[in-house]
Amino acid sequence: MPEEPGPMTSAASAARGTRCETEVEVRYAETDKMGVVHHANYVIWFELARTHLCALSGFHYAEIERLGYLLMVTGVEVRYRHPAAYGDRVRVACWADRLASRGIRFAYEVRRGDVLLATGHTDHVWVDAATGRPCRTPAQVRAPFERLAGLAEA
Amino acid sequence: MPEEPGPMTSAASAARGTRCETEVEVRYAETDKMGVVHHANYVIWFELARTHLCALSGFHYAEIERLGYLLMVTGVEVRYRHPAAYGDRVRVACWADRLASRGIRFAYEVRRGDVLLATGHTDHVWVDAATGRPCRTPAQVRAPFERLAGLAEA
Amino acid sequence: MPEEPGPMTSAASAARGTRCETEVEVRYAETDKMGVVHHANYVIWFELARTHLCALSGFHYAEIERLGYLLMVTGVEVRYRHPAAYGDRVRVACWADRLASRGIRFAYEVRRGDVLLATGHTDHVWVDAATGRPCRTPAQVRAPFERLAGLAEA
Amino acid sequence: MPEEPGPMTSAASAARGTRCETEVEVRYAETDKMGVVHHANYVIWFELARTHLCALSGFHYAEIERLGYLLMVTGVEVRYRHPAAYGDRVRVACWADRLASRGIRFAYEVRRGDVLLATGHTDHVWVDAATGRPCRTPAQVRAPFERLAGLAEA
Repeated sequence: MPEEPGPMTSAASAARGTRCETEVEVRYAETDKMGVVHHANYVIWFELARTHLCALSGFHYAEIERLGYLLMVTGVEVRYRHPAAYGDRVRVACWADRLASRGIRFAYEVRRGDVLLATGHTDHVWVDAATGRPCRTPAQVRAPFERLAGLAEA
Repeated sequence: MPEEPGPMTSAASAARGTRCETEVEVRYAETDKMGVVHHANYVIWFELARTHLCALSGFHYAEIERLGYLLMVTGVEVRYRHPAAYGDRVRVACWADRLASRGIRFAYEVRRGDVLLATGHTDHVWVDAATGRPCRTPAQVRAPFERLAGLAEA
Repeated sequence: MPEEPGPMTSAASAARGTRCETEVEVRYAETDKMGVVHHANYVIWFELARTHLCALSGFHYAEIERLGYLLMVTGVEVRYRHPAAYGDRVRVACWADRLASRGIRFAYEVRRGDVLLATGHTDHVWVDAATGRPCRTPAQVRAPFERLAGLAEA
Repeated sequence: MPEEPGPMTSAASAARGTRCETEVEVRYAETDKMGVVHHANYVIWFELARTHLCALSGFHYAEIERLGYLLMVTGVEVRYRHPAAYGDRVRVACWADRLASRGIRFAYEVRRGDVLLATGHTDHVWVDAATGRPCRTPAQVRAPFERLAGLAEA
């Protein structure tokens, strides 16, 4: 995450924002010769879940890009507990874990039924697409993302 | 396709079997620097649609593998008409286009709303997983796949 | 391929142009639960081989895009004969099989040692990136691509 | 990493083992609509670099699997500093960062020329393929992996 997250972060942690669940069906192409899902695919599932969470803010991420901004990934971490298999339907939960003036951390949990398969988070900075440089949270999406992070009344 | 498809094929063509539609939401990771979905992903969408069609036979493909058989891909063809974009929801139709004693051809159409984005087909042979050699359609799945191909009463 | 390829095509077929070989090492992530390379990856290998062939024209494909043109894929066909395994080093041969006023067909062969694993081709049309519409072969790359296709003196 | 890494780890950190560099050429399919390499691909590049490092132990990872063991991934972390573009040739350095009785941490650095693009690490546990359960480092590979980690004479 860029810069210190500041007090908003703890507020976000306290409040717990919107938790969005996305169902993913494991594709054959996502497996590897070990017989289960290749670990890189969880990063792609996280992104799909993040897309759905962002859409709940009222702005689909494709729309945010059209406004001229990117939420560039600066970090990814995944912990794997149990493998997923071809044909499994897993649920990927995603929420905004920390909100800073110039970036966001999203957190994730992947479950098959009650079994926790993996956890992780991704760090992002806002980038002005025109200049390619990091920037503050775009004015248009600031309030929607604060609501998403459970900071509506802040 | 291996060997001549034989008379069953024309019957299948005449009867038109089950047509299965699968909705796919375009993932960010599926796009490339041209800004639209990379062409290789249609092959993966075809496979997902094929999985759903096969499941309609009463045998999920994972179950067929557990019986000791594989439907190995021997050919793929895709024609691209219009690109798909991030966030699009496309529908992939799949049906068994030809049924032979030792293989199947599946056909596909990808649509966004009324717009036909791509068409294609894949050819497959049955393989005995234990020997790794081509084999006849496994007895257990023969009738279910004939029904799928619209050859139930044949 | 768009439009009839015209006489240049047969010339190209007659002359046989530059054949470019690219070595690819099979990645673990490219395998699937069948234990061998997933069939969609051949489409990606073709693209890598095509990049190398195009570079032999004197224009890296990234440079062609900077000139404002795209070689959009309109079709893909792959025939699979033998599987490739994790750790295998395969060679992907690529050549311009047909050259038309508005497009190209590239052909491919994938080999491991002397064993032919797969063959295929891809069809492309030139697109003006600014308008998104098909166009004639860009003037700058016309002669280089004709040389590539074995049509240098034509 | 499973269990406490124990004293071997610090020794490994002190000694610094073999550093293996792998050149990777960015594929078009690895880019996304942002115009640069999609972040999930670094995880796949790490795996390719890890394959090469493991091979320096005298055992290709495919051979280790044939012995009946897996080095299952339990965690991945990547930090992204600068993007990679289509056609770039990047170098992925990989080394065994920690060696424990039942697992390994590999570390990675991705560079284009002198520019550090990304860093990361992956955590692994040894798994007995027959039982699917974690196990001690297989006897056959123990000394080779200790040499790899710079613990040969320890």
